[in-house]
Order: sequence, then C-alpha cells, then structure tokens
Amino acid sequence: MTKIDSRLYELSEVVDKKFSHGEIPSENMVEEIASITSQGGYIGLAQIDPTAGNLEFNAKKIAKYIKYAEKIGLDLVIFPELALMGYPIEDTIDRHPLIVRENIKWLKGLAKITKNTTAIVGFVEPREKDAEGKRFYNSAAILQNGKITGIVRKSLLPTYSEFNDYRYIEPSPVAGIQPAETLGVFSKENILPSNKYLEVNGIKYGISICEDCWNNKEFFEKNLYDRDPIEELKEADVFINCSASPTRAKKEQLKHNMLSFISSKYKKTMIYVNQVGAIDNISFDGSSRVFNYSGELIARAKSFEEQFLIVNLKNAIGKIYPLTRGLEKSLTEQKVFTLEYESDLERTYKTIVQGIRDYFSKCGFKRAVLGLSGGLDSTVCAVLLADALGKENVFGISMPSKLTSKESKSDAEELAHNLGINFTEASIKPMVDTTTACLDQLFKVIETKWDNRYKISFTPDNIQARSRAMFLWGISNEFASCIPIATSDKSELYMGYATINGDMSGGFAPIADVPKTKLFAFARWLNSNREDKNAIPEAVILKKPGAELAIDPKTGKTLNAEDALMPYEFLDEIIWRIENKNESYYDLLQAEFIYEKKNKISKEQKIEWLDKFYRRMSTALYKWSILPPSVIVESRSINKSDYKQPITSSKINYKGVNEEEIENSLL
Amino acid sequence: MTKIDSRLYELSEVVDKKFSHGEIPSENMVEEIASITSQGGYIGLAQIDPTAGNLEFNAKKIAKYIKYAEKIGLDLVIFPELALMGYPIEDTIDRHPLIVRENIKWLKGLAKITKNTTAIVGFVEPREKDAEGKRFYNSAAILQNGKITGIVRKSLLPTYSEFNDYRYIEPSPVAGIQPAETLGVFSKENILPSNKYLEVNGIKYGISICEDCWNNKEFFEKNLYDRDPIEELKEADVFINCSASPTRAKKEQLKHNMLSFISSKYKKTMIYVNQVGAIDNISFDGSSRVFNYSGELIARAKSFEEQFLIVNLKNAIGKIYPLTRGLEKSLTEQKVFTLEYESDLERTYKTIVQGIRDYFSKCGFKRAVLGLSGGLDSTVCAVLLADALGKENVFGISMPSKLTSKESKSDAEELAHNLGINFTEASIKPMVDTTTACLDQLFKVIETKWDNRYKISFTPDNIQARSRAMFLWGISNEFASCIPIATSDKSELYMGYATINGDMSGGFAPIADVPKTKLFAFARWLNSNREDKNAIPEAVILKKPGAELAIDPKTGKTLNAEDALMPYEFLDEIIWRIENKNESYYDLLQAEFIYEKKNKISKEQKIEWLDKFYRRMSTALYKWSILPPSVIVESRSINKSDYKQPITSSKINYKGVNEEEIENSLL
Repeated sequence: MTKIDSRLYELSEVVDKKFSHGEIPSENMVEEIASITSQGGYIGLAQIDPTAGNLEFNAKKIAKYIKYAEKIGLDLVIFPELALMGYPIEDTIDRHPLIVRENIKWLKGLAKITKNTTAIVGFVEPREKDAEGKRFYNSAAILQNGKITGIVRKSLLPTYSEFNDYRYIEPSPVAGIQPAETLGVFSKENILPSNKYLEVNGIKYGISICEDCWNNKEFFEKNLYDRDPIEELKEADVFINCSASPTRAKKEQLKHNMLSFISSKYKKTMIYVNQVGAIDNISFDGSSRVFNYSGELIARAKSFEEQFLIVNLKNAIGKIYPLTRGLEKSLTEQKVFTLEYESDLERTYKTIVQGIRDYFSKCGFKRAVLGLSGGLDSTVCAVLLADALGKENVFGISMPSKLTSKESKSDAEELAHNLGINFTEASIKPMVDTTTACLDQLFKVIETKWDNRYKISFTPDNIQARSRAMFLWGISNEFASCIPIATSDKSELYMGYATINGDMSGGFAPIADVPKTKLFAFARWLNSNREDKNAIPEAVILKKPGAELAIDPKTGKTLNAEDALMPYEFLDEIIWRIENKNESYYDLLQAEFIYEKKNKISKEQKIEWLDKFYRRMSTALYKWSILPPSVIVESRSINKSDYKQPITSSKINYKGVNEEEIENSLL
Repeated sequence: MTKIDSRLYELSEVVDKKFSHGEIPSENMVEEIASITSQGGYIGLAQIDPTAGNLEFNAKKIAKYIKYAEKIGLDLVIFPELALMGYPIEDTIDRHPLIVRENIKWLKGLAKITKNTTAIVGFVEPREKDAEGKRFYNSAAILQNGKITGIVRKSLLPTYSEFNDYRYIEPSPVAGIQPAETLGVFSKENILPSNKYLEVNGIKYGISICEDCWNNKEFFEKNLYDRDPIEELKEADVFINCSASPTRAKKEQLKHNMLSFISSKYKKTMIYVNQVGAIDNISFDGSSRVFNYSGELIARAKSFEEQFLIVNLKNAIGKIYPLTRGLEKSLTEQKVFTLEYESDLERTYKTIVQGIRDYFSKCGFKRAVLGLSGGLDSTVCAVLLADALGKENVFGISMPSKLTSKESKSDAEELAHNLGINFTEASIKPMVDTTTACLDQLFKVIETKWDNRYKISFTPDNIQARSRAMFLWGISNEFASCIPIATSDKSELYMGYATINGDMSGGFAPIADVPKTKLFAFARWLNSNREDKNAIPEAVILKKPGAELAIDPKTGKTLNAEDALMPYEFLDEIIWRIENKNESYYDLLQAEFIYEKKNKISKEQKIEWLDKFYRRMSTALYKWSILPPSVIVESRSINKSDYKQPITSSKINYKGVNEEEIENSLL
C-alpha cells in the first residue's frame, strides 16, 4: 500500500467515526480524500445497518453516502441487498403494500440526488397486479445522473432456516440488468434485449443479489437451484454481489472460500457488500470485501460496524480490516463437537451485543432490568447488557428466596458493583408466602372436583420464578422505555427447564441460543477480554448451575440442574449433533461423546439420559413457540424464526421401530 | 338414490361411528356392505385426522381403512396429502431425518397389507443425499397387491400464509405416476418413461396433490405458478386430488367453484380427499367430495369429522352431506366488511372446538382452567372449552379484585352453573396488595437511579391480570394434564390491549383470531344453537367490554375498553380492511365505515382513531410473537404461523410521505 492509500484509510476512519456519531466530516478532510479518489477507478462499499421498513431512516442514510461518494468523485457506490427496505421485511409488504409504493418514491428521490457517481441500491419492486407468481421482486436499481437507469432482480430465493424469500418474492428469470422502463412491469414475458452489464468508466460490472452467487456447481457438493446467475454474468469484468448474509457459527470460512473460488474461477474481481446490524433475531456481520481476479482478498470492511470502505479498483488496492475472531473459523475443519469454544467467543460477544443494541434502539427501548441470581445465566446477560446499552441503563435486582444462599446474594452484588450497573435487592418472600397461601387454599377446593393432583409438584419452584418476573415486568410497566430480560440459556430451553411467565419470560432473551458449556467459557473470556477485567466473580463460574428453586429430598441441599437433567457436557453434545449433523437416537447411542471419554458411564446411564433428552425436548416445543425475541448465535437454533416444528408433534417416536414390529402392528 | 345406496350410507354411518369409538364393526354389517360394494366401481374417500409425525398412530389408522376397503371389495381407497406423516410437518423432517426413513418403513408395511384394493397414501419421500434442490418430495404412493407400484409427487408448493412447503420440499418436474423403482432416487434427470395414470378396472386415474389443482389459468385471474399439473393429466378418465386444505373464512365457495370448473372443463370426474382435524393453529375441515364430468357435486363427506365416504363411481352415485354452515358462504359475493356474522358462526364454532380438542388430545392434555371475569371473552372461551373437552374437565375461577362488580361475579357463577363446569371463587386481593406493597418499595429505590418513572402507569392494572395468571398457571402446575387458557380476542390483540404474563398468557388461546364484534354475535349464536340453550347470561352480552382493571379518573367508573381504544365496530372494520383488502391509511380514511354510517363522527375523530390504531398495532408486534398456540379462524390473521412481521419494524410510517417531502429530506 502506498503512502497515499494509507492516508486515504486514515482519513476514512475519521469520516466513518463522524458519520456514526451523526456528524458531518469537515470540508478539508473530504477535499483531501477527494484529491486521492477523484482520479477515477475508486469505488465505495456502503456497509449499512438499515431498520426494517423505516424508509425515511434508511433513505437518509443511503443519501448521506451517495452525496459523500459524489463529493469525493467515486465511480460507484454499492449498498447491500434491499438496503432501502431492510432485509428481511417478511410478510409486511404483502399485508401493507403501501410501503412498497413508498419505497419506490424514496428510490426515485435517491435517483434524483445522483450525478456522476453511480449508485446501486436494493429495494422491493412491486409487480403488475395480475402478473403470474408472487407480487414482488427483490431488486437493485442502478442510479446515475439523476435517474434510474437499470434494474437487477434476484433469481435464487433462499427459503430455509431464517430465510423466507419465496413467501413473497418472485424469482427473476434472468440475471443482469434490465432497462429502467421495466420497473414495476417486468415479467418473464417481457424480457427486453439489453446490455446486462453496468458499464462505468470502461469497466463492465455483472451485478447479482445475495443467494444468486451461492450456487456454483463446482464449489458446492450439493446445489439447491438449477440456475447459476454468476455463470450467466461471466462476460463481466467485475462481479458485484449485494448481500444480506447473517452471521452463524462457522459460516465465514465457507463464504470466504466460495467468493474466492468464484473470482479465481472466472478470473474477475468480486465485490461483496453485506448488510450489518440486527433485525429482530437475525444478526448480520458486515465484513464486506473485494477479491482480485486470482481469488485473493484485497479489501475487507470491519465486522459488526457500519463502514464506508473505499477501494481502488483500477490498481486493486484496498485495506483488509481484521475479522472478528470466530468469524474466521474454518468450516472445512472436521465437523465435530468440541468444548474448545475460545475461538468463537469474540464473534459470539459481538453478535449478541449488536443484537441487543439494535433490538432496543430500533424498537425505541433504552433500559433493561433483570434479575441477578448470582448464577451464570443472569451474570453473563448483565455483562452483555451493560456493554450493549451502557451500565447506567441496566438495573440488576437480586430477588432472594429462602433457598438463596448468602454466596449467591453477594456474588450478584459484587457483579453489579464491578460492572457499575444499578443494583438493589428485593425480597420475594412476602409474594411467595402470599401466593402459596392463596394457592394452597385454592388447590384444596379444586381437589374436591379433580383427582389429578400431583403428589410431588414443581408449583413452589415456579411461584418463586414467577414472583421474580412479576417484579421485573412491574418495573418495566412503571419506568419508560425499559424492558425485562429473559435469562434462559439454550441447553435449558432445549429441556424445557425454564419457567413460563418466570425466567423464560421477558422482552428479550440475549443468551437463548448459547449452550451452557459455552457460557462457562464465555464468562472466562469476558473476564479476560473486556476493558474492565474480571467483572464476573470467580465463584459464579465455579459453582454448579442450579436454579436454587427447590430442595433435593435425598441430600437436603438445593437441587442442582445437572441432577435434574444430565451433565451439561453431555446435553450440549446431543444438541450439537442433532442440530449440525441431524443425528438420530441410534447415531447418538453409538457415538462416543466427549463426556464419555472423560467419565466412565454405563450404557444404561447413556440410554437413560438420551431418553430423558427426547422426552423433555418433545414437551418443550410449546416453550420454544413463546420464546421472546433473541439473538441467533449458533449454526442452528430453536429460535422460531429459524426452526419450525408443530407442538402437537410431541408424540414422535425418535427411536423408530423395526420392520417386524411394523408388520405386527399393522396386522 | 336407490334403496340399495340408501342402505349403504345408513350402514356406513354406523361403521364410521364404530371406527370413531375405536371399535370394530360387526362382521354381519361389513358383509352386508360388501354385498353392495364388491360389485366393482366403488371407491372409498378416507378422510382422516392424522397427528403430525406420529407414524404409528397414523399408519394404524390408515391400515384400518385399507383392511376395511379390502373386506368390502372397493376398487380404490384414497387418503389425504401426507396422510402417513400428517400435514404440515414443517422443518421437523429436516432436523430429524430419521422420521422420514421411518415413514418409508411404515409405507412399505402398509403396502404389504394391500391385496385387491388399490390404496393411495401420502408420505414424505427422501431424496438422494447430493441431489440438486431440497431434500424431500411431498409424495403419494400407489399400493396394490402387497407392493408399492408407483409414486406421484407434488409439483406446486404453496409458500405463503400458513404454508411453508418450499422450505423443505422439492417441486416435482412432472405430473402423474412414476414407477416404484424411483422411490427415494427420483430427480429431474431420471424421469422414466411410464404410464402416468393409475389404471384400475379399466378406469384411468390422474392423481395430483393439493396445490397442484389450484393453478387453472382460466379459472384464476392471477396464477402463482407457470405449470398446471391438471392440464398435464388431461388424458385421465378421473382426476384424484389428495389434499390438506385448511378452513378459512369464505374459502369454501372458491374451492367448490374451482373443483367444479376443472371437472366440467375437462369433462372428468374429480375426486377430492381432504384432511380433517387440527395441527397446532391450522384447522382442516374435511368435506371431501366428488364432482361428475359436468361439474356437478355427487358426493361430499361431513365437515370437521373423520369419515370413510364410499362412492359408486361407475354410476356416479354418492351421498352429499351438508356443509357446516359458514363453509358454504360465497366468496364471490362482494368483498365487504359486514357485522352480519350469523352465516359464519357454525363454521367458527366447529373450527375452534376442533382446534381445542385436537391440540389437547394430540399433546396429551385433558383439562383446562380459566379465569371467569363475567366478561364476553372468558365466557365464550368457557363455552367452547366445555364443548371441546367435556364440562367436567373445565374449571372456571372467578378472581375478583376490588374493581370487580357484583354483577360480574354473579354472571361468572351463573355461566359456570349453566355450563355445568367446575367453579370456584378465589380473591386476588391478598396477592395484589402484597405485590403492590413490594413494588412500591422497589420503585422508590429505582427512582433514585432512573428518572423515567411514568406519572400515570398501567402497573396496577397489570398486577391484577398477572396475579390471576399466577393462579391459573399454579393450578396447571399442580394438577396433571391441565393447561390454563389465554382469553384474549383478536381486536384487543391487534391493539396490544392484553397483559403479558396476564390474560394473554396461557397454554392455548381459543379466540385469538375472533374479533370482538363477532364474539357478541357468537355468544348469541351459542345461546340459540347449543343443545343447552342460553348458557350465557344475557347480561354478559349486554355489558360494555372492559377489563375492570382501572378506574377512569374522569368518570370515577371502571374504564371501559372502547374508551381506551375506540368503538369495536370501527376497530374491527379497520382490521378486516387491512387483512382482506390490504388497504392503506388513506384508503381507510376515504372509505365509509359502517360505524360512520350509523354514527356521525368528525374527520378529526376518524383520524384520531386511525392514528391510534397504527400506533398501537406497531407496538403490539412483540405480543403477537409470544402469543400462545391458537386457532386460525378468519381469512387472514396475526397468528405467527400465518403472518410474519419483524418486531423492529415498529417505526414504519404507514401514512407515507409525498414526493416533495422526500426531495426535501434527501437534499
């Protein structure tokens, strides 16, 4: 990199900072940048964080970058997929088509402010009322000299996991650009002869949208679609892909390899512009980038931050910002469960912090209140909330019951002190006593009519958890823009080990997709890697998880969660194997778990745990369906926007039966 | 109909009753039926209620009907779409592919019990691991003489509203039958030359699956797909469609017209076999049927009941059971909002009762507990629960607070008495007092740190609602197989007028898709149409809805809901217009509402209500996302399996802006 290029990136970082604070960079600075970039051959990757459906907010952000790109004389400024609407927008556009008409008005407004710099802006395109197929395209417009000059439409529509494109989007029958006059009237019957490439300063750009570049037949062992829009654009000099690709564990290496493969296979520069920020449960990591014609990375934007990354396309010069640790993790490494979480923890941290911050800010919330039990789950949530919202905006409440140990109380207080968040203690004893007394009376009446009262019940445990939630929701009702936090973790949600209207209830669930064994590693990581070291008391990490809700009649001590469930190391490996390898009951029985390697357990013990797992999971489906909004972190999840299973499928026999049994039972 | 045919249907009803009670019909009866049906030319439409993923349960049910069909010598027995797996099964098959392998084993088991009668059985077909596209087909197998002899695969994949086929199903590239050896290995590269029709006793059957018959280019103004599998099967003598088509308001007439159109257009008999029963939120009405070659209905099974309907295909003779009132309602009538609900109330009733019954039985629940406030919502819920579960399995609890009127208490008790359900009263006063005292103390502490305490808050109202939910969930924790009921209605959910962890919390929400104005009509209908007349006290229907949670400072009386929101007649028309006609803010402003015709209101008043509607709806999205399982009743809903909108889209500007404002704001 030349001295001039170094200076360019130095200045750009100042500009990015100004923009992120809503300020305008100084004229001098912009002029100095322009003196470098206006030579021609420079382009801008506008990695933005849009809000779903908030057209004014998104359009103003886009306009800001278009105007800046004009000022510094870039050839091209490229925005992510559906930048104007935000991705995903889901069924909203179907029920409220007004916002699609509005997005066209804003798009035309954006076109008007373009001059010499060409802008590529993603938007939702309406179709003619009676046109065959869905009502919309997922499109990107070419804006130049005050006008829309062409439209690109998405061909391949991801419809799995967190993606639902085909619910409302019609696939484009062609790759590349169609003329501007097809806006709103395009269909496969009126494909116009056109130059499918964008030509700017003698360079031919082949533009595609997100999934369109994910179907290379050589790269992937299995393809989801028959067409490959990239192959249809192979006469281009440079590929551009406008994307909204979420972060998932171990996805980055696949993405990197694929983009690199495409650029080297076709010997083209490949520009990939990704959305950043979170929309509800889905977190986008940004990390937009450029590969040269031999597949080498020459530029990469930051992860989990808005950025305007300038790249010198003429000389193939850019700056490669480091990836968040965890994003770089290889998917090509052997696919096995591991307790070595270290390498994925920075990504986990940034994914969740971004998820909290964006959910709160986009919904208009500012403050969070949570119960601090002195246990691992609420502790990690408190740290993440403090970092996402600011310590002054977090209130931790210790709500001891008679089962809460002194240690738990002091751990909670110490944590709050270390973090600098607000803290108080409030006893739930009066509520628990009153509720218990009322219920005891009520149960006696009901017993006279119903004979199905449990001998041993979880009612007392649940009264405690629900009394706490009563406090937290009360606070959120009484104090403006404040929401209570559900602190349940993934392992316990899998087992339904969470109280409805209790700890699993809240306005947001930060760690609902983080398994317990990872949370232990995460707590240590937070202690070492945050600016304020060791905020989490060591005792929190060392103690065995247990909800301190009930006494074990056998030991006289509070029941610990692993006794009620099974060892978390074992549980988390089951979850991982099912989610990542779709293993069956028998696959799991035959596999050697890490826990088994470390601890001799009998086959009977393993069967008991596996049976318990499937039994509990089957009846946890209802709880998954009412889970508050949460951040998807792992490669697969039980988040309802990622995974759907009928609650009434709770009688599935996951063990299956053999042919003989089938014949007999059908006789 | 001849005397013989009459006798056939008389006997068949007895057989259906026996089957529905898990009994075996007598040999004599079966022989008498066989003496009629074994002449040839008779077929059976097996309208069954499967449980999602419960293969043994479903297979045994299918086997029962196959064996019966063999015994009485039918040519053919036809089952609904995915009969063996249940529809929908959603992502379950993707995460747990074992159950797909298992369904093949059960399918082969079913094939083995076939002899002379041909069975058509829907199942999930796995594809080869690396095959391009999705991992499964939605298929139907032809079972004859102990073997699978052919496979039909679904081509058109509904992916909208409650349907998500394209998430996990690959569309078939061909219509009609492919040979049995393609099972599990079919792809568009190995389409085998084959007789695409099923031939039985000289009749050529063209078989399709559900959506495959919903794309006729002449019938529909707008088509979703380019192919028409029915057109591809036009050389058949008879069309068969295996279906799982849910009931929605005003859908029946469209379905009837379309099926009739197809049969008359192609001059073929059309056989349509539909699933019955509910899977989670989705209710299927059954009403399987046969049209003759001129489009006339010649047979129709009952609605909302399992049935084995025998039809004489040779002489085109069958029995037409009446539709549930409401199913027959015309969709072709002018699409306008109306308060005349009468004609849809029987359908509404059966849809919800079936929804409750199937959810409870498929999940293994037996009993329900609900709060009886003396208001309309809880009253209607109690009636529906009593009818669905049996009065002895319902417990109504009156939980008065200091704001509860004497009338409300006595209305609740009278209702319970009339219904014969269990009833008791339990005061929430001790809990409310204790909670309020605890919270007051807590709020004072929080105030020292946070300056955002509301001057006027809803905290007291919510404490009441949550205390009640605490009771109900306590009972469900203490008594086996019992769940608490969320009594929120659609109008109030739209407005977020429901308390989180309070009245909107529960294991099931029976009326979450019924608007308030319809509930009034529904209450009257229940009083007139149930065997026990007038179970609902007249006072319940006459009183103005209000949650009795707060005092209106202006009047000193308990706040009524319409004052807090807007008149329900006005609110429900907004909802209907948005859901059914996708109207915008300005469409609504210009439309003349029924409420406006009856009551002079100013334009300012209308604007105030519209603004309030959009403001409240935007912040209700979170509540929709945690809504308990509920029955979809209306033609559109906010049920999360039907409609998805990001919660963070709460800042959408539903009014839009004009071009000038856009230009100015982008300057």
